[in-house]
Formats: sequence, structure tokens, C-alpha cells
Amino acid sequence: MQVALVMGSISDWPHVKATAQLLDQLHVSYSKRVISAHRMPKQLQSFGSKAKSEHYQLIIAAAGGAAHLPGMLAANTPLPVIGVPVQTKALGGMDSLLSMVQMPSGIPVATVAIGNAGAKNAALLAAQIIGLHDSDVEKQLINYRQNQTKEAIKSNENLK
Amino acid sequence: MQVALVMGSISDWPHVKATAQLLDQLHVSYSKRVISAHRMPKQLQSFGSKAKSEHYQLIIAAAGGAAHLPGMLAANTPLPVIGVPVQTKALGGMDSLLSMVQMPSGIPVATVAIGNAGAKNAALLAAQIIGLHDSDVEKQLINYRQNQTKEAIKSNENLK
Amino acid sequence: MQVALVMGSISDWPHVKATAQLLDQLHVSYSKRVISAHRMPKQLQSFGSKAKSEHYQLIIAAAGGAAHLPGMLAANTPLPVIGVPVQTKALGGMDSLLSMVQMPSGIPVATVAIGNAGAKNAALLAAQIIGLHDSDVEKQLINYRQNQTKEAIKSNENLK
Amino acid sequence: MQVALVMGSISDWPHVKATAQLLDQLHVSYSKRVISAHRMPKQLQSFGSKAKSEHYQLIIAAAGGAAHLPGMLAANTPLPVIGVPVQTKALGGMDSLLSMVQMPSGIPVATVAIGNAGAKNAALLAAQIIGLHDSDVEKQLINYRQNQTKEAIKSNENLK
Amino acid sequence: MQVALVMGSISDWPHVKATAQLLDQLHVSYSKRVISAHRMPKQLQSFGSKAKSEHYQLIIAAAGGAAHLPGMLAANTPLPVIGVPVQTKALGGMDSLLSMVQMPSGIPVATVAIGNAGAKNAALLAAQIIGLHDSDVEKQLINYRQNQTKEAIKSNENLK
Amino acid sequence: MQVALVMGSISDWPHVKATAQLLDQLHVSYSKRVISAHRMPKQLQSFGSKAKSEHYQLIIAAAGGAAHLPGMLAANTPLPVIGVPVQTKALGGMDSLLSMVQMPSGIPVATVAIGNAGAKNAALLAAQIIGLHDSDVEKQLINYRQNQTKEAIKSNENLK
Amino acid sequence: MQVALVMGSISDWPHVKATAQLLDQLHVSYSKRVISAHRMPKQLQSFGSKAKSEHYQLIIAAAGGAAHLPGMLAANTPLPVIGVPVQTKALGGMDSLLSMVQMPSGIPVATVAIGNAGAKNAALLAAQIIGLHDSDVEKQLINYRQNQTKEAIKSNENLK
Amino acid sequence: MQVALVMGSISDWPHVKATAQLLDQLHVSYSKRVISAHRMPKQLQSFGSKAKSEHYQLIIAAAGGAAHLPGMLAANTPLPVIGVPVQTKALGGMDSLLSMVQMPSGIPVATVAIGNAGAKNAALLAAQIIGLHDSDVEKQLINYRQNQTKEAIKSNENLK
Repeated sequence: MQVALVMGSISDWPHVKATAQLLDQLHVSYSKRVISAHRMPKQLQSFGSKAKSEHYQLIIAAAGGAAHLPGMLAANTPLPVIGVPVQTKALGGMDSLLSMVQMPSGIPVATVAIGNAGAKNAALLAAQIIGLHDSDVEKQLINYRQNQTKEAIKSNENLK
Repeated sequence: MQVALVMGSISDWPHVKATAQLLDQLHVSYSKRVISAHRMPKQLQSFGSKAKSEHYQLIIAAAGGAAHLPGMLAANTPLPVIGVPVQTKALGGMDSLLSMVQMPSGIPVATVAIGNAGAKNAALLAAQIIGLHDSDVEKQLINYRQNQTKEAIKSNENLK
Repeated sequence: MQVALVMGSISDWPHVKATAQLLDQLHVSYSKRVISAHRMPKQLQSFGSKAKSEHYQLIIAAAGGAAHLPGMLAANTPLPVIGVPVQTKALGGMDSLLSMVQMPSGIPVATVAIGNAGAKNAALLAAQIIGLHDSDVEKQLINYRQNQTKEAIKSNENLK
Repeated sequence: MQVALVMGSISDWPHVKATAQLLDQLHVSYSKRVISAHRMPKQLQSFGSKAKSEHYQLIIAAAGGAAHLPGMLAANTPLPVIGVPVQTKALGGMDSLLSMVQMPSGIPVATVAIGNAGAKNAALLAAQIIGLHDSDVEKQLINYRQNQTKEAIKSNENLK
Repeated sequence: MQVALVMGSISDWPHVKATAQLLDQLHVSYSKRVISAHRMPKQLQSFGSKAKSEHYQLIIAAAGGAAHLPGMLAANTPLPVIGVPVQTKALGGMDSLLSMVQMPSGIPVATVAIGNAGAKNAALLAAQIIGLHDSDVEKQLINYRQNQTKEAIKSNENLK
Repeated sequence: MQVALVMGSISDWPHVKATAQLLDQLHVSYSKRVISAHRMPKQLQSFGSKAKSEHYQLIIAAAGGAAHLPGMLAANTPLPVIGVPVQTKALGGMDSLLSMVQMPSGIPVATVAIGNAGAKNAALLAAQIIGLHDSDVEKQLINYRQNQTKEAIKSNENLK
Repeated sequence: MQVALVMGSISDWPHVKATAQLLDQLHVSYSKRVISAHRMPKQLQSFGSKAKSEHYQLIIAAAGGAAHLPGMLAANTPLPVIGVPVQTKALGGMDSLLSMVQMPSGIPVATVAIGNAGAKNAALLAAQIIGLHDSDVEKQLINYRQNQTKEAIKSNENLK
Repeated sequence: MQVALVMGSISDWPHVKATAQLLDQLHVSYSKRVISAHRMPKQLQSFGSKAKSEHYQLIIAAAGGAAHLPGMLAANTPLPVIGVPVQTKALGGMDSLLSMVQMPSGIPVATVAIGNAGAKNAALLAAQIIGLHDSDVEKQLINYRQNQTKEAIKSNENLK
């Protein structure tokens, strides 16, 4: 597997599904799992510590509120970690965003947009990284981007 | 020791000093240490896991930015954890605050104010909790509060 | 009774119910009441002043907007006070949160998350504090946390 | 005395001084005092409760952070209460502002701007209210406003 | 008429209705009108300039977004002006609030809460000001507040 | 004169100076004046109402806090109005920005960035509008932009 | 065509339609198109670069989130660019607004309000600019504004 | 060269220097350049379009305010782009952050923290990505992280 797709709670799955589907489409192999940073801290550390030796190339982690999952995974692995801030009811996801992106010097989290755009962009960012050395993924990614450009151009033509 | 006073970085010490001094004044015993959630995740988990068996009664944790320290300690111990959000240069500490207070259901962090007021109030909150079953601490706390009331009254008299 | 569960308005009850139910589950005894800080200031002060002599060990107070209830109860008692910020229509609860957490030096409010997560976490934080000297509550709390860990693990297995 | 000028802490005095000086200039009589909502809750309630019988016409209250002073005074008196949010180090006074202005239905606080502009405008608002039935104050107020208009016009002329 | 109740747009009426009803209940006489600061600037200035000579005692102005109505009325009259920030779709009313409360030194707007609480509190604040010299209004206000206290107490009893 | 450069207070002049200097450089003719929306409402309306007949082509208005100046000028003239939000001490200029940009449907304010960038960009935007029918201004603008591109390219070369 | 009406995505059309309809009503001629800044960067640059030679007088660009469209069009043309921030699900459009209005010195975007008010005001601002040298558009604009004033006045009469 | 380090303005260099120094320390080769998104849009597109054919593996882009640089580079290349939000005077960098992280679906920007922590973390994230297939960089990265852990541990020992 190339990517470990992790969510903080099973309730994040409807949100993270968009990531999974896009990884499929981009020919990026992945496993998916729930690791609650706060309910399963041992599993978090255990998984983080061995992610590299299990040959993952990167981790995508989605979480909401005081979203510690991506940062704590990053603290336990040298692999790149992509953080997806889940939208929250009270504060719209500003809490999720700041809990991920404002990592102190030493351990980065590659943070993408709040919500559905971020869920999709996490897959694309993963494909960009993996595509650096996987020509099939690179091809799929370029194909995907050409298609979305074509669709945008077509939507412009339909508008007129 | 009754309280474990933990900071995310040695650079937080000038800030956390106010907590330590007030714990001294309130006759609350404590140890102090640096545990970086992101640079020392193993030590974080190890310390969190054994804090109870080492007879601490509660943990005070100060951190800034994507401040995961108090939440991750709380995930590893049944002891109460008090979080002190350190003021930050860019966002004033709003990032620190939301990263602590917005903990998802299951693992609370007892969050106090950003900055110096919070640093002091963490000590007072600790004394309130410990004072429930430690009459000396309770006495010191009541004394402290009576004094601060007297000072406020006196400042009012001086004003006139 | 170990805990006084106070809400600023009867309209907060649907929200605070989650706290009450979890206190029940954790074997924490409690009374519940409405004290509007602004409509019942005399009752607020009277209740705050005698909460300790009535053998409460701590107060949980939920309120919204310019949420003065937990801070003013804390001003009138040496007991620990947990504040639950109620989500608001206009500002999502940012007003409730800042009105509680930003207490000036001298009188802390142990603030938890906005909304439902906070309502539950207030009960858990209360159980953590009471569990320091009540082995039944401590047992229930540990049990509760083990169960939520099991459920998270199970949700992970179901995902696959 | 027509106005009770109250501050939450003696440290607010440099800020509140602008209010006092402008009340003097507008011929509004006032007393000034420190009442810390959290350190002096009994004095707060006592003062609030008798403000009307002591023939005050309104209260101006300045405070910062979780600023409960104006709202709690308002809860204890039928007199109008003007709230002045003091600027804060971490959040610029957004906390002070929301803690005052977002009062729930039933007890209003007439809130003015954060900081020095608010300190002055509290005095002007007081003079507007008192000036409704005090022709000297009304005259001073109109005079003050004519002067500030003249100064603005003059500054325009000097610019050219 | 004692109060001029002004709204920035007819679409504010469902919101402002709560103010009108409460003014009725408190025996405060009022006129109501639409003055759009931006669509009817001449009427704004004309009405503001003569409000005092028409024997109004104060103005209540509700508006949303870049809410200039209360501030510009205040600029044209020495009467006290109460501002009610209307909740907005995009920013929840934070724009309306800041556009009113952050008035520069010289011309205050007495700002109340965003939305329905503010709509009601504007009426209560008006009654507090008018009640200083109108014993019927004062009586109604005290009555209203006693009733709301009774209802809060009763809701507490029903809860148990 | 092509542009009326208006500031809400003489204290805005050090800020607005950057606009004036850039207008000079771009060969845009302008008058400058102080019109305080709140201290000089009559002058505001008078100036706004006759700006068109005095052959101005657009207005640039800078103000801070509850910044009503550009919106109220726009309400009184069919000319385009550019708003420059002045940075504020407490809220960084977020109040100035929202008070300008969030104009309700019917009367726009063309808002530029908070602070110095906005002060300069107001001049450039004015030149873009005037340059549509003034070839000298257009030439200066194109020249200015070419120069700033050259400087950016040069700074890149110096970096290496 | 006088105006190029550009949207970042076909999904913005329901929002931008209000702009188009108002441009029609004001007799401003326009073309409309989709140019995604991120999916169609070549088209963006190509269109921006030739907008002036195609005799457009200004560009209106609507986009949401990290809304780069208006700023990047502005970077490629000396024509004035009006930016319309589309409301977003997570952050209400604060992201769209700041991504447009906070342009650095050198290249302005004339930003209007978030959402529907902004969509309409973009058309009015365009008409104000074009109306400087197009007497038909000027007439329509003045007519439109007189009508909206009349309607506001009428709504006031209906209220009574 | 493995990394293209790009800044929006030469004034960002003091900030970006920390990135450059850390890339050196981690044995990541890089070129550095100024490309102003708004002053040099042609260079931006040209550089973005050929970055891949020039064998860069990723781009780091730092910018402030309406920070379009990383997003527009990302739109022109399939390479991963890391965005560093520069702190801003008025809004602390919240504008820079939202302009980068809130990228719409289709084109991600891997965003790190505002300011100095982000500047360093961009280098570390780059090393994580490049280290996936460059064992020297991987070694340096692991070494760097071990050292920072040792320093944190040592700072803990010194504290005692």
C-alpha cells in the first residue's frame, strides 16, 4: 500500500470517502482505518511508528475540532502527513484548520482545505507526491487534471 | 507530588513560571518538565500512561500554536488535565485556545485563559481540585482569594 | 450530591441533558437547576456562596452568549467550576466560549468545548475530579473510557 | 452624583481616566470606584442593588477579557448600564466586546467601542442620556459636539 | 412619541417587530419607519436633524451588514441612539456589530446584541432611559423584570 | 480635478499620503480634504451631492473603525467610490474592512486592502478607471506597472 | 462589449446571474464566461492579456474560497477588475473576501460584499465606471437608484 | 535542483531564509527566486509550466496577504507545491493562510504554519517528500529529528 488513509472517527467516513474514491481513480493504493487520537492513543503511536517499515509512502489524516490526529501521526513517523480539516458545527472548521496547520517548528502537517475540497485535494496531493516516482500514478494525475480542465472549458462553452 | 506541570517547549518556561510560583504559594507540590508533544511523543505517552501510578492528582500542560500536549496527555491518563494556551505571535493564541478547548467528546481538557491570566488560573484551578481533599491547600487557596479581594478593595480606596 | 449542574436558561436543558445522562452513567450524584445570571443574580450569589457548605464538590455551569454564569458562580465559591459554552445562532458559540475561558487572573473557569462535545466532556471532567477520591466513580470512568476505546477499535474493524 | 463610573481593576484606570475627564468637561457629576466582578462579587451585588436608591442615573462599567462587570451590574439594577470593552493583549478586546454586547434577552448593556474611543464615547452617551433632563449637561454636550465639528473643519482647512 | 424606531430596510421588520411589541408592553410610545442609510440619505439626515425638535427622547436603529444607519443618525442628533445589529447570512452579524459598536471617538452608538436578543434588549434599554423620568415606564420595566425573574424561578422549579 | 481624496480624520493623513503621492506620480489630478462622517455629516452630504456637478470622476475615501465615510459618500453620489480601510489598534482593521465592503445591495463601495497596500492600490484603481478615457493617465499607469515588474525582476536577479 | 463577466466555476452561475441581470437592466453590454484560475490558468492569462485590446472596459470576477481569479486577471490587464466574493460553506465567505481584498501594493481588486449583495453591487459599480463616459448607462443608473429610493420610501409608507 | 524555493517579494527573503538554511542542512538542493504573482504573472506561468521539465521535484512558495503565488504555481504544474503563509501586519497572516489553504477542489496547496515555524516546516516537509527516494536526504532528516528530540530532552533536564 502506498497511502495510509486515517480518520479520527467513523463519523468522518462520509467525508473521507471522497478521498478514497479519488485515490482509487488515480491508481494510488491505500489502506483505510479509524484511529482516534484521543480514544486510541496507543494505536496512534504504534501505527505511526511502524508506518514507514510497512512501506507506506505517506499518511492522509482527517479529523475535526481539536484535531490532533495528523500532527501526532507526524510526530511518530518521518513520512509526509497530509491533514484534512473536517468542517465543524460550531466554528465551521476553523478549529480543525488551526489545530493542524499551526504545527510548531520541527514537525510539519501538509494541510489542505476544510471540508469536501480538502478531502479531494488530499488525494490529489498524495498522487502528486507518489507520482514523482510512480509513472502510472503520474499519468493518472495528469489525465485527471486534463479532464478537469476540459470540463471547465466545456462548462464555459455550455454557458454561452 | 500532587501536580505534574508540563510545558511543550523550554521557551514556554518564562510563561509557565507564574504557574509554578503560584503553586508554591498555595502549598501545592509539583514537578515540572518539558515534554514536546511533537518532538517527544514517546515520552508524552510514557509519562501520560504512568502519571496516575506515580500518584499525581492532576496535570497542568501549557503549549502554543497547534497545541496538542494537554489533549494527548489527557488521552493517556484518567487524571484531570488543565490546558494553558500560550499566546502566539501571529494569531494571538486563538490557535492555541481552539487546539485545546475544542476536544471531541470523550476526553476533556479543562482550558483556562490565553497567556498570563491563564498561567495563574491554572494554579488556582489545581488548588481548587486538590483542596477538595487537602485542607492545607484549601486554607491557602481561601487565604489567597481573601487577599486578592482585600487588595481589590484597597485599590478602590486608594483610587478615591 | 457531588455536583451542582446549573444552566443559565431552561432553553439550555436539551443541551445539558447530555451532561446529566453521562453523570448518571458515571455514578456521579448531582442536582440540577436553572439559575439565570442576569435574571436571578441574587439566587446566583446565594447558591454560589453556600455550594461548598452544602457539600457539593464542584459546579458545572452551561450558558450561551455573554455567558457570565460559570464565572460569577466561581467568584462566589472556592469549588472548581466547569464551564460549558452553548452554541449560539449568530456567532456559533465563539461569544459563549470567550465569555467563559478568558477569565482574568484570580478566578478560573475550567472551560470545555462548545456544544454537545463540551456537554459530555463536562461530565467526564467532573468524574475525573471526583474520581480522585471516589473509587466507584473512578471505576465507572475507567470503564467508560475503555468502552469508548473498544467502540472506536470496533468501528475501525467494521470499516474494513 | 449622576453617574457611577466603575472599573473592574485598578489597572483599568489609565484607560477609564479619559471617561472621567470627559464627564468633568460635560458637567456630569460622578463617583468612581473599582469593583472586580470576580474578586468582589458581594460588593458588586450590593452596589448594583442600591445604585438607584443612591440616586445615580446610570452606570458606566469598564472591564476586559471575560468582562462580566457591566452585565452583572445591569442584572442588579434597573438603571441603564454602559459597557466599555478594554483592549486585551491576546485578542485585541474581541473577548471583552463579546462578553458585554452579547447579553441575552432581558438585561441589556449599552456597549461602546473597544479602547480609548469607547472610553470617551461612554462619557458622551452618558451625557446624552442625562442631558435629556439636565439642560446644563445638554448645553455642554451640544457645545462639545459643535467644537469637535469646528476642529474637524479646521483640520480640513489646515490640510490644504 | 418617546422613541423613534428606525430600520434600514423593510426586510428588517420581522426582526424589529420584537422591539415594537416590547415597547408597547413597557408603555413606551414610539413611531416606526424605514430609513435606508444608503438609499435615503437625505431622509436620514433630515430625520436625524429634527428628531430632537420633534420631542423624541431617543432613537432605536436596526440594520445589517455595513450598518451605517445608527451611526449616521447619531451624527445628526444629540439624542441617544441605540443600535441593533441584524444577523447576516454570510458573517452571522459580526459585520453589523462592528459597523455599529466601533464608532470613533465623538459620536457613540449604544450597541446591543446581534439578532433577537438585541431586538428585545433595545426596547428594555430604551425603557431604562425613559424610565429615569417617566414613572409609568419605570413601573412597567420593573414589573417586566420581576416577571422574567419569576418565570426563570418557575422554570427552575419545573425542571426538578 | 479628477479625484476627490477624502479622509475621515486628519489623523488618517500620514496613511493617505501614500495615495496622494501615487496619484501625483500617475498624473491624476485631485483635491484632498477631511470630512468626518460623524462630526461633519452635513458637509459629507453636501460634498457627496455636488461631487458630480463639480466634475470629479471618482472619490477615494479612507476611514477606520466603524468606517461610514465611503458608504455614505456613495449614498449621495452616482460617482464610483473607492474605500480604503485604515488599520486599527484593537482589531487590526477588520472593523474598518467590514464596515466598507459589506455594503447592502444598491450602493457599492470598491474596497481595497487594509493599510498601506490599500492606500497605494486606491490610487492605482483610480488611475485604471480614469485611464479608460485619459491617455496620459493610462500611459503613466502602464509605465508604473512596467516599472514595478522590472523592479521585481531585478530584485530576483539581485537575490541570486 | 463593455464588461467581461467571469466566474471561477459554472457552479457560481446561480450567484452571478444577479450580476448579469442587473447589467442588462442598466444597459451595460457584457460577455460571460467561466475561467477557472486553477483549472484554466493559460486561458486566464490569455484572456487577461487581451481583454483591453478586445475593448472591454472592465472585468467583473466572482470566485470562492482561495479566490485567485480577480487578482490574477488584474495582474494581466490594466483594466479595472471588480471582485465578487462567493459565500462559502465552511467560513461564510471570509476566505473568499480576504483572498480578494488583501491584494498587495501594485495590483488592486475593487472588492464588493460577500454573496448576493456583492453580486448586484458589482453590476452597479460597473455601471458607475462606464457611466462616466456613457450617458445611456449613466441615465439607467440614476434611474435605478431613484427607483430604489422610491421603493424604500414606499416601503416606509406601507409600514405605517 | 530538487526544490524551487519561490517568494512573492524580495521583502519575504528574511522570512524565507530559514527555509533555505534548513534545506541546506538537510542536503536538499534548491534554487531560489522572486516571482511576484501579481507583478510577474507571465514569469509565474512560464516557471510553473516548465518546473517539471527542469527536473524540480517540488516547489516551496512563500507569500503574504492575498497570497496567490503557491496556488497559481500549483495550477501550472503537476509537482507538489508547499505554501508558506507570511505573517501580515493587519491580520496576523490569517489572510495569507486562507488564501493558500482554502484551494478549491482540483489543485491542492500543501500549507504549513504562518511565519517562522512554517518557513522551517516547509523545508522539513520538502525533505520528507524527497527523502522517500533520496536516502541521503532521508538520513539527514532522521538525524535532524533525532537531534531536535535530544535537544528537547536536554532542555527538560536543564529545567530541573
